[in-house]
Amino acid sequence: LRSKLPRVGTTIFTTMSGLATEYKAVNLGQGFPDFPMNGKLVEAVTKAMQQDFNQYAPMPGWLPLREALAEKAASLYGASLHPDTEITITPGGTYAIYTALTTILSPGDEVIVLEPAYDSYVPNIEVNGAIPVLVPLNGHDFSVNWPAVHAAVSPRTKAIILNSPHNPTGAVLGESDITELRKLISRQDIFIISDEVYEHLIFDGKVHHSMLRYPDLLERSFVCFSFGKVYHCTGWKLGYCIAPAALTKEFRKVHQFNCFSCHTPSQVGITEFLKDREEYLQLGVFLQEKRDRFIELMRHTGFSLRTSSGSYFICAGYEKISDERDSDFAIRLTREAGVATIPVSAFYQDGADQKLLRFCFAKKNETLEQAVERLASL
Amino acid sequence: LRSKLPRVGTTIFTTMSGLATEYKAVNLGQGFPDFPMNGKLVEAVTKAMQQDFNQYAPMPGWLPLREALAEKAASLYGASLHPDTEITITPGGTYAIYTALTTILSPGDEVIVLEPAYDSYVPNIEVNGAIPVLVPLNGHDFSVNWPAVHAAVSPRTKAIILNSPHNPTGAVLGESDITELRKLISRQDIFIISDEVYEHLIFDGKVHHSMLRYPDLLERSFVCFSFGKVYHCTGWKLGYCIAPAALTKEFRKVHQFNCFSCHTPSQVGITEFLKDREEYLQLGVFLQEKRDRFIELMRHTGFSLRTSSGSYFICAGYEKISDERDSDFAIRLTREAGVATIPVSAFYQDGADQKLLRFCFAKKNETLEQAVERLASL
Ligand SMILES: CSCCC(=O)C(=O)O
Ligand SMILES: CSCCC(=O)C(=O)O
Repeated sequence: LRSKLPRVGTTIFTTMSGLATEYKAVNLGQGFPDFPMNGKLVEAVTKAMQQDFNQYAPMPGWLPLREALAEKAASLYGASLHPDTEITITPGGTYAIYTALTTILSPGDEVIVLEPAYDSYVPNIEVNGAIPVLVPLNGHDFSVNWPAVHAAVSPRTKAIILNSPHNPTGAVLGESDITELRKLISRQDIFIISDEVYEHLIFDGKVHHSMLRYPDLLERSFVCFSFGKVYHCTGWKLGYCIAPAALTKEFRKVHQFNCFSCHTPSQVGITEFLKDREEYLQLGVFLQEKRDRFIELMRHTGFSLRTSSGSYFICAGYEKISDERDSDFAIRLTREAGVATIPVSAFYQDGADQKLLRFCFAKKNETLEQAVERLASL
Repeated sequence: LRSKLPRVGTTIFTTMSGLATEYKAVNLGQGFPDFPMNGKLVEAVTKAMQQDFNQYAPMPGWLPLREALAEKAASLYGASLHPDTEITITPGGTYAIYTALTTILSPGDEVIVLEPAYDSYVPNIEVNGAIPVLVPLNGHDFSVNWPAVHAAVSPRTKAIILNSPHNPTGAVLGESDITELRKLISRQDIFIISDEVYEHLIFDGKVHHSMLRYPDLLERSFVCFSFGKVYHCTGWKLGYCIAPAALTKEFRKVHQFNCFSCHTPSQVGITEFLKDREEYLQLGVFLQEKRDRFIELMRHTGFSLRTSSGSYFICAGYEKISDERDSDFAIRLTREAGVATIPVSAFYQDGADQKLLRFCFAKKNETLEQAVERLASL
């Protein structure tokens, strides 16, 4: 068998979570909360199972859930969506991105990817025979280097992948980015894949510039969301993709023969839960407190934290502690200090050392304290 | 957007289930049971959620589940499997087949598909730029026409898709098919995609010729299974793929960037449940009773049933009732008689009328009785 993805190894998240378990390390690596999810949602899904909502959901998703999502999109972002034709429930945000890219890409197409980037984007492009065109974010604040993006466009450019709040850096897009994006699409018909799985995890009063706010952008977008990141149940693997009807039609052709449909009881259970706006509106505040606590605790270590305005993550340099490559340092930190993180080099295709580690702060306070205690002894 | 799957419409299952709901028809179309699943499994999954098994499972699946599956494969089929490297949990059997095909196929490759065929196979091949080579099953008993299969092999043949027990016909492979398959692979290095989601639904004392029984075949196989079809929870969308380590390694490269991982609480809950062998060993008997009851009831109608030796399905001609195309007849039957079925032409790429309907008999006795009552009045 000739490998279709010869350069792909096991994802860094699997590797580091594996190492964390092996060395009984505090796991600030892979992005998942270690505190319990809301018991009411567990109850709602249990009830759905007991009422025997256990057979195939409709291929595009449970309709009342899609309707509730349309209402949410209207109230949060002023979007006017047709649940029938513009929203598709997927087994997670990663799958939504994969399916969107598979929907639009043919061999030889180019896709602009801003690095550092979540590690699924490039293999998703390559498995379709398409070509990732890598553009680095600005080094100082991880903002988008728009001149470099413009320079990367070619006649074969089919799409750009955006991700705000950003994994791994916590950077968020601002108003000027929307202006630049408009310039970009006015030059050429380019699709937007917008990874918005951290939509609610945004701090310091910043606004989430969802593509759902901008009809002229939305009309060429696949916007990908995650319930796991909203309801603290990453293992439920449920998300959705919003795209205009013509794009959704093609998206569903791939989806219906990829996974076909999604976990029915979760869809039924989440539907009611989604109507409680407090549940997601307080998330940013909750996670901001975690971030701030982590920043405060880390002052007692030799790490130098970068800015995070959103997501589960914050990056940190360690020049006062070590001059190792970040991948080596992350492994040693897991083994010797008992704290697992993700080396930021793993978010670059060339794997070049960034001298940065990514920390996930979506953890119980005790977990954060325990981790920092270990880091402080370095 | 240029469609990558221009010939694909909405799957027939979605269409007919939609029509069934609209016309309040008895639904013998899409393959799902209408009786409740085992409450103990619901309890086990509830417990897993309550114990907060709600974050990412490992990418290849929950290890104790894979270990339990290896034990099952050993006891049922004499297979000796490494759970670490040869079993991957997937969000359903359809996804496992999609991911296996995406793992092996490059543009221009050919795949032999036996028609009638489950409707995901061909789009799965085409979305990878590969070419389906369609070989009809024998008309009288839906057995494999091996001379035609041999004649269809070309230097570009990369794989053959097998499906036993067979959807939509209920045909099952026998010992002579295994002999023929051995001849085929001795001629050329061909992968086998074996869709065995109905493994336990086999009747009349017949043996399921799983690829897991034959090391020489397994060494080139991706064998795809479904928990939904075993535990009467098709809406849970959970299954698995068994393949030798070298193939699994490549399969997981696609999987880890497609869905990444699967619903954690279901995996935890099913693990214990799987140890109860009675749960799946009695399935064939249970469904055979359903089949026999359905056959008996249908004697009072003008339909002429074909043989079904396995699966949820049985096909029937209707020459005494109508000379309509099966697709037209299926729609009229839903609207006017209030019974939804699947026209067998939908399992053929050219959509040619087969004058056959597929009935799903995995239903409550009352449902079967009610359906047949309606059919008897035709
Ligand atoms: C499959 S890991 C998903 C993304 C994430 O949680 C991470 O970046 O750690
Ligand atoms: C996604 S429908 C799965 C297969 C099936 O149940 C059917 O053939 O009806």
